[in-house]
Amino acid sequence: MQVIVNAATSADGKLSTRRREQIAISGAEDFDRVDALRTDSDAVMVGVGTVLADDPSLTVDDPDRIEARTDRGDPPQPARVVADSRLRTPADATVYDDSAETILLTSEAAGDDAVADARARDATVIVAGDDRVDLPAAVGRLPDHGIERVMVEGGGELVFSLFEAGLVDELSVFVGSLVIGGRDAPTLADGDGFVESFVDLRLDEIERIDDGVLLQYAVS
Amino acid sequence: MQVIVNAATSADGKLSTRRREQIAISGAEDFDRVDALRTDSDAVMVGVGTVLADDPSLTVDDPDRIEARTDRGDPPQPARVVADSRLRTPADATVYDDSAETILLTSEAAGDDAVADARARDATVIVAGDDRVDLPAAVGRLPDHGIERVMVEGGGELVFSLFEAGLVDELSVFVGSLVIGGRDAPTLADGDGFVESFVDLRLDEIERIDDGVLLQYAVS
Ligand SMILES: NC(=O)c1ccc[n+]([C@@H]2O[C@H](COP(=O)([O-])OP(=O)(O)OC[C@H]3O[C@@H](n4cnc5c(N)ncnc54)[C@H](OP(=O)(O)O)[C@@H]3O)[C@@H](O)[C@H]2O)c1
Ligand SMILES: NC(=O)c1ccc[n+]([C@@H]2O[C@H](COP(=O)([O-])OP(=O)(O)OC[C@H]3O[C@@H](n4cnc5c(N)ncnc54)[C@H](OP(=O)(O)O)[C@@H]3O)[C@@H](O)[C@H]2O)c1
Repeated sequence: MQVIVNAATSADGKLSTRRREQIAISGAEDFDRVDALRTDSDAVMVGVGTVLADDPSLTVDDPDRIEARTDRGDPPQPARVVADSRLRTPADATVYDDSAETILLTSEAAGDDAVADARARDATVIVAGDDRVDLPAAVGRLPDHGIERVMVEGGGELVFSLFEAGLVDELSVFVGSLVIGGRDAPTLADGDGFVESFVDLRLDEIERIDDGVLLQYAVS
Repeated sequence: MQVIVNAATSADGKLSTRRREQIAISGAEDFDRVDALRTDSDAVMVGVGTVLADDPSLTVDDPDRIEARTDRGDPPQPARVVADSRLRTPADATVYDDSAETILLTSEAAGDDAVADARARDATVIVAGDDRVDLPAAVGRLPDHGIERVMVEGGGELVFSLFEAGLVDELSVFVGSLVIGGRDAPTLADGDGFVESFVDLRLDEIERIDDGVLLQYAVS
């Protein structure tokens, strides 16, 4: 299993404003890069916080890339994976549309009715953890669904938990040329944070794109 | 008046951990760069949060650079400026030692006794603002003390306020190759944050130093 985290931040490390509204941090070049990354992934994963804030589609845009996927025997779109301990993903969320497979990682706290509802909407539901998604267990079951390479697109709570669990292999950050500010704005890695030993990265690539810079790291 | 903000962050935008303990983000190359930047500045400024957390000296280390300053007719060390609305800087703080001039920016809320105490410790006290330092007014009075170029070394609360007041000309960020995480850890720009219009930067330089990358921006 390979897990790649990809995000766009301001120069001060924010994913969006304290209002958690999606804002344009990157531009056309970075969108195209993200589309290519999605194409090369078996699944695109987010936390339910991102679903509630942005209602993203998480799908590949470019028709040629979709065709390239089917040509090599993959489904036209990568699966969408949402970490959602209580199945708060709304019934009308875009991740439930029929453009791609939908997989919900949840916990026992969701309850049988919510699990049945999600399955009735054609979602695959993986239950792991009592109160919160047990990420090592849940992510460990993705290969049963043909998923070997996952691209994680945020947000900061999920990303921190994945780092904490030692599940991340690579990190790509587009750093946009703006300051958002805000002690309560979401950052690339939130959660409780580390206090003594930190995640060591190795900076592999630095590339100027759009009006900012793309930093690509491997987790040491 | 020229104001340059300089800081070291993790790849996720943090200045330190949620415990606000100083941690090593950069290395020898970046320390040397910061020492040179201090040498070229008339003053080095921080918020009282940084004084309380780190008790920094804010002085130039390299004897050759100190000599270069005196050779050109400057004081051996840049002045140390602390934004401190209630004069909470402890009497035994390193910024009060006699290695450099000390200037406290404060507000009416500090009270006359605290101002007299600080002056008795040979500090210059500039009072501007009722409850909190009025930064445009206080910074605007620094040229009366021979200060035309200020390097700001954090923390995130002060840096946000300076951006909000439109006082920042340049921003240098060393991005270290580590993840700190933490929704409560200080970031490069905290405060309330912007929600609609953001500070636009222009990315002028990208340089790999130590095991990270230095990003240098001009404020557009
Ligand atoms: N700029 C970018 O690249 C980018 C990308 C994505 C998002 N964003 C922004 O980020 C913000 C959302 O980020 P966020 O941090 O609030 O939300 P998030 O990370 O997307 O989702 C967090 C939620 O995931 C659920 N979760 C389930 N298991 C978890 C686990 N083991 N660890 C952590 N979380 C788990 C939790 O809710 P339950 O307990 O209910 O399960 C948690 O509250 C929005 O403002 C969005 O616009 C920006
Ligand atoms: N990595 C780095 O480069 C770096 C550099 C510096 C600091 N740090 C870290 O940053 C943390 C400290 O940052 P911080 O954000 O807590 O503190 P800070 O920005 O250094 O100081 C904030 C304080 O400054 C005072 N202040 C006075 N006037 C202000 C104004 N107009 N706007 C904003 N603040 C004003 C306020 O206290 P009053 O109301 O009492 O005046 C405020 O609480 C520490 O953990 C430190 O280790 C890291």
